[in-house]
Amino acid sequence: MKKIPERIIECLNDNQSFLILVHQKPDGDAIGSAIALGKGLKQLNKSVDYYIDLPIEEKLLFLPEIKCFNQSLKEKYDIIVLLDCSTMEFAFQPEVLPEAKLTLVIDHHKSNVCYGDLNFVEITGATAEIVFRIIKALNIKIDTEMADALFTGISTDTGSFQFSNVTADTHKIVSELYLIKSNYAHLSRLLHGEKNYNQMKMTGAAIHSLEIIKDAPIAMMILDHQTIKDFGGTLNISDDVANIGQNTSGVIITALLKEVNTGEYRVSIRAKAPFDIHEIALKYGGGGHERAAGFTFKGDINLLKKELQDIYEAQRDTHV
Amino acid sequence: MKKIPERIIECLNDNQSFLILVHQKPDGDAIGSAIALGKGLKQLNKSVDYYIDLPIEEKLLFLPEIKCFNQSLKEKYDIIVLLDCSTMEFAFQPEVLPEAKLTLVIDHHKSNVCYGDLNFVEITGATAEIVFRIIKALNIKIDTEMADALFTGISTDTGSFQFSNVTADTHKIVSELYLIKSNYAHLSRLLHGEKNYNQMKMTGAAIHSLEIIKDAPIAMMILDHQTIKDFGGTLNISDDVANIGQNTSGVIITALLKEVNTGEYRVSIRAKAPFDIHEIALKYGGGGHERAAGFTFKGDINLLKKELQDIYEAQRDTHV
Repeated sequence: MKKIPERIIECLNDNQSFLILVHQKPDGDAIGSAIALGKGLKQLNKSVDYYIDLPIEEKLLFLPEIKCFNQSLKEKYDIIVLLDCSTMEFAFQPEVLPEAKLTLVIDHHKSNVCYGDLNFVEITGATAEIVFRIIKALNIKIDTEMADALFTGISTDTGSFQFSNVTADTHKIVSELYLIKSNYAHLSRLLHGEKNYNQMKMTGAAIHSLEIIKDAPIAMMILDHQTIKDFGGTLNISDDVANIGQNTSGVIITALLKEVNTGEYRVSIRAKAPFDIHEIALKYGGGGHERAAGFTFKGDINLLKKELQDIYEAQRDTHV
Repeated sequence: MKKIPERIIECLNDNQSFLILVHQKPDGDAIGSAIALGKGLKQLNKSVDYYIDLPIEEKLLFLPEIKCFNQSLKEKYDIIVLLDCSTMEFAFQPEVLPEAKLTLVIDHHKSNVCYGDLNFVEITGATAEIVFRIIKALNIKIDTEMADALFTGISTDTGSFQFSNVTADTHKIVSELYLIKSNYAHLSRLLHGEKNYNQMKMTGAAIHSLEIIKDAPIAMMILDHQTIKDFGGTLNISDDVANIGQNTSGVIITALLKEVNTGEYRVSIRAKAPFDIHEIALKYGGGGHERAAGFTFKGDINLLKKELQDIYEAQRDTHV
């Protein structure tokens, strides 16, 4: 791992007031990184404010530092720190951004455009890995809440150490977190295992609807309007549900259809490399990436199945 | 972590022929530990045989060394190595055990009774962690299959680094495995994410039946005979399914009822510490431990619900 550059350490050491921003709809890595860095800077007697998009996922609310989020902002800070944000637009920010001498960007996204006055961007499993290294470089003592926050960032962004963004450094850093707090089993269950009753029932309904399209490794799941009303209430159905199809042996492409209004579906598509499904999303006015995309669909679901099958077959022939 | 004692290293270095045994119904840690040690010893030009209980779980079959399992045994070995077995009875062994100068036990179970001539027992996340340390002490080069085998052992026995048996050493060792092979994402998905279509449908049926007993944090799931016939074909329903209840927020006790014959249920019970459910299993002629037990039940399911509720209430009052 690269050494944290001296100018980043100086920027944090030599200034007094910090505003921490993270991306919209913050996840475990955004919240964990913010809290670890914020609490660390407070230990150095810095003044730290957080401006964070709400609501925060229920499973993250256990971190006590969250009570310090979104208190009144100053008009002026020494430094605005942007964590886990690949672009400025992606950051959640107040309508009028306070003045600052400098913006400091710390991030692990490949797509980061280095839009800060100072930038430290490295492709790691999680931004929390970089924050850990910064905290160590600042000689800050990591307390158990900071350890929990860092573990939360790393564990959520790496899918409990299962994704391909995990490196030797990821495990090396987590090994050090175990020297601060010896057991993360309860936290791991909270982050990965537990679902509330409704989320669990929604998962069951999705599996119940799971269908493998004839002669193609394509999974389709449909959550009808009533099911979403009964168990969801909202359309924020987690990636977990979209991934059920992908976790079925042999499946390469999954479509999850959520009926937002009668006959109108919000479609989430997932594909395994090297298959690319973003074009069908663009065709229907949606967006996304090669392996994960979404769009709105009205019409005959059998036609959608046929389209997915065509995409698979066209690319299969290329990839063979 | 304790240094591997010199006499263990000498035993492996100074002898020539080895028979490797592991426990009955071998899991990822048993298979992974056996292959890593076996291939390691072969690198030192030792002769190695494996005698392993079949069938091996489908998800483990990717390891090429499995083709060397259960070839003809010699009448005599220098050393019989027992891996991941807490007692000799638990080991899978041929009807007539070949002669040997010495038995060497390597294990991570707290309950290990040190029944070998030589024993190295340490409470770690997985036996594979100890095997890794032994291989390093023997100066053996770890190839990618051995790295996969060790990763399989550690990842499966720690629930993808989520259980309370994980330590700083666990992550330190895995960090070193990433220096041998840089990506375990595909393997992780194979070990943890994937279910075949029928297993997935069985999971869905279990969630569909999930019920939280009124006024108590007790989950009950029932898989009826037809569902088991449709999707299971066997009663080997994985722990995953039994754990669905336990992974529902707030639940302390889960009962999974599998209808083996009309009106006759195989019941699997799980409890969270400090609750203890093994007595109800004993009462019905079953067995198990404090937090996981099983028995056969015929009769009125409402009575079973009532009994579970009573157990919860009696212990709740003790634990408050």
